[in-house]
Amino acid sequence: MKVRPRTLSGFMELLPQEQMKMEKITDILRESYSLYGFSPLDTPLIESSEVLLAKGGGETEKQIYRFTKGDSDLSLRFDLTVPLARYVAEHYSELTFPFRRYQIGKVYRGERAQRGRFREFYQADIDIIGDGKLDILNEAEIPAVIYRTFTKLGINRFTIRVNNRKLLNGFYEISGMTEKAPEIMRTVDKLDKIGAEKVKQILIDDVKMLPCKTESLLDFMAIQGTNAEVISGLEQYRGMSPVFDEGLDELIKVTEYLGAFGVPQENFAIDLKIARGLDYYTGTVYETTLTDHPEIGSVCSGGRYDNLAEYYTDKTLPGVGISIGLTRLFYVLSEQGLLSDEMITSPCDVLVIPMTEDLKTAAETATVFRKNGIRTQLYVEKKKFKAKMTYADRIKVPYCAIIGEDEEAQGIVALKDMKTGEQVGLKAEDAAALMKEKLSAMSETAPVKL
Amino acid sequence: MKVRPRTLSGFMELLPQEQMKMEKITDILRESYSLYGFSPLDTPLIESSEVLLAKGGGETEKQIYRFTKGDSDLSLRFDLTVPLARYVAEHYSELTFPFRRYQIGKVYRGERAQRGRFREFYQADIDIIGDGKLDILNEAEIPAVIYRTFTKLGINRFTIRVNNRKLLNGFYEISGMTEKAPEIMRTVDKLDKIGAEKVKQILIDDVKMLPCKTESLLDFMAIQGTNAEVISGLEQYRGMSPVFDEGLDELIKVTEYLGAFGVPQENFAIDLKIARGLDYYTGTVYETTLTDHPEIGSVCSGGRYDNLAEYYTDKTLPGVGISIGLTRLFYVLSEQGLLSDEMITSPCDVLVIPMTEDLKTAAETATVFRKNGIRTQLYVEKKKFKAKMTYADRIKVPYCAIIGEDEEAQGIVALKDMKTGEQVGLKAEDAAALMKEKLSAMSETAPVKL
Repeated sequence: MKVRPRTLSGFMELLPQEQMKMEKITDILRESYSLYGFSPLDTPLIESSEVLLAKGGGETEKQIYRFTKGDSDLSLRFDLTVPLARYVAEHYSELTFPFRRYQIGKVYRGERAQRGRFREFYQADIDIIGDGKLDILNEAEIPAVIYRTFTKLGINRFTIRVNNRKLLNGFYEISGMTEKAPEIMRTVDKLDKIGAEKVKQILIDDVKMLPCKTESLLDFMAIQGTNAEVISGLEQYRGMSPVFDEGLDELIKVTEYLGAFGVPQENFAIDLKIARGLDYYTGTVYETTLTDHPEIGSVCSGGRYDNLAEYYTDKTLPGVGISIGLTRLFYVLSEQGLLSDEMITSPCDVLVIPMTEDLKTAAETATVFRKNGIRTQLYVEKKKFKAKMTYADRIKVPYCAIIGEDEEAQGIVALKDMKTGEQVGLKAEDAAALMKEKLSAMSETAPVKL
Repeated sequence: MKVRPRTLSGFMELLPQEQMKMEKITDILRESYSLYGFSPLDTPLIESSEVLLAKGGGETEKQIYRFTKGDSDLSLRFDLTVPLARYVAEHYSELTFPFRRYQIGKVYRGERAQRGRFREFYQADIDIIGDGKLDILNEAEIPAVIYRTFTKLGINRFTIRVNNRKLLNGFYEISGMTEKAPEIMRTVDKLDKIGAEKVKQILIDDVKMLPCKTESLLDFMAIQGTNAEVISGLEQYRGMSPVFDEGLDELIKVTEYLGAFGVPQENFAIDLKIARGLDYYTGTVYETTLTDHPEIGSVCSGGRYDNLAEYYTDKTLPGVGISIGLTRLFYVLSEQGLLSDEMITSPCDVLVIPMTEDLKTAAETATVFRKNGIRTQLYVEKKKFKAKMTYADRIKVPYCAIIGEDEEAQGIVALKDMKTGEQVGLKAEDAAALMKEKLSAMSETAPVKL
């Protein structure tokens, strides 16, 4: 009796060529995060439940994979933020601050299985953690990392939406809405989806706001235009609330520094509608949307918080960070056909195909190629030439190096460019040099076309 | 009440600089495996228990992290071989064979916690899976990958020990020891540790072998010398068992091809004592030992097997593969002080330190550096110069780019080489070019010194 081999539902598993695309995307994230001076971090997937759930659960708690092993009550991590908080608190005295880390790792949430929802998925996070204080410049650097990362991925039409929680809190204070702020924010969050009229109705009917107040709220939320225009619109509210003024000053600085970090105006917009959750974030907040695919929602979000690890330590550890839901992003890009076909997805750059009985020359040829940094596979199974070429086609290898008796006698290989079909007789070293040049151009291909 | 932040015992977690070393080693493994044409694979950490334990447990079963979620009986993977078997069986019709995959991932075994034993650890595996058949050349290619990987890591004094199970089975057949073969192999495995005399005693007393037979067994195991000498010693047994002869032919071919793959004689030895488990392997088997640290045992082992996925499919899927216990290897190298101090372990290559109030120039400078591929951090917290330099020292950054008022006025940075202490005034672009050149030489440093 065989057991039917199967993957659990809600767990993404890719075929080799798709996996190569995923690797390429992950490589770009790692490279981009490193370029901005973030340290890689790797924490255990399993934590003590007491530690992981110190904050207490809420919605997430039901979804957690929790179990016992021996006497231990264990849980799989459900995000990378709680482990970061635990790590920084645990290793506080051994770390240098500001501590900048990136982590790309799997997290687990036992959500109801449905298309495009995953129970095991990658998050790709960066955070900058200060010891007591953290300069506002860091809040401008984070969107610069997003800009660089997305551009490098080949995603060009996107907007990083920025807001500042102090602006919102200040405005609610000015307008006497502080008490109802949580409800208001939840409603305003629907503006893009259901429109101003419906939002107004909900605010009046359900939130029980006075019509005149909803007017002034919607006026505020409607401030838009270029970043300079939005800032000038916000200046009208200056002087009425210290919190608001502080938020506005921060926003102005972030905007200014973003320019210095090379982020173009068109990839960056102040959007007063963005709030990102209710109590965690305290300053700048971010969302990133794809211009042509607003339906996907935010693909990279985060913000500034005041206290990362309050459940573990008395130290005040403010920080700022973002998270990319990598598995979901990959799934969506793939579903929408936005992954480039130009990427090399073959496990190798060249397939060495010997047509002779003895395989020594083939092995030596492969060794020359590999010494030149060319990813090389040998196809030595005893099959007809046609079957060998079918294999080459199926793995989509860019080059084949065929070694028949003639080639062996002449000390050359027949190097076939699989795209053009052209074939030339070359010494192994020369074939390597030729491939190296062509492949280096091909490897520049961005994984996404957008 | 704070929860004490802590890592579970048996779970490795590294500080940033150690993590950088681990990343470097992992990068080399990935690069090396890719160079030999292996596809990256990523499978879920959680599998259905029925699937994962299809083979039935044995010793491993007690160690497995097994739990239920909803109605599902789930387990964390305890190696990368069972998930590979499941993957190949599940996706058989979508894969091309021979299928070459590498996988570097965490696996879980709830072993008794003790120093140097981990419950969560990385394995780094490569396997080549054939469909029905697999050419002997593949069995020579695997040690070539080991050779390239270890050399690149900076490990030079190591030996890949190779044997062939058919030689052993053939010899036992010739000597009428087939029935007792499992027991004999377990005992012979202790030869290096306890010596020939004690092994002989056990074979006679416990395994109940005739003294003359133990003599002939130990004579066989004592065949040594250069690979040519060992092969010539083995030739004396030719013609008595077809299995033995087949094993010898395979060993001769593997030896010959290994040369063609560029593996030097001194890194490779035939060792008839190696058996690697009792029933899984059927042909060539490998172990890799560090010349100066035999006490560590094998750091990379594997072999040829006839049937990867028999619990999931009727297809015959022979293969050959090896596994590096990466976490343990890293732990041992680190404990023994064998990790190089020359590696760059800083999260960045340069730290930009503005001494001015406005940070725009600093941000622009960082942007220039990053455009040139230099990993850059800004230190903008409001601290005294000395505190800033202490931060630079602690993260062990190779360069600092200091921007005071003078530098800002002149449009330059003061680039300080943190190793030599030398400082020069340069334009950002020129500083970038200088660092690029120096860093490229430094990045060649191998992570291990052995």
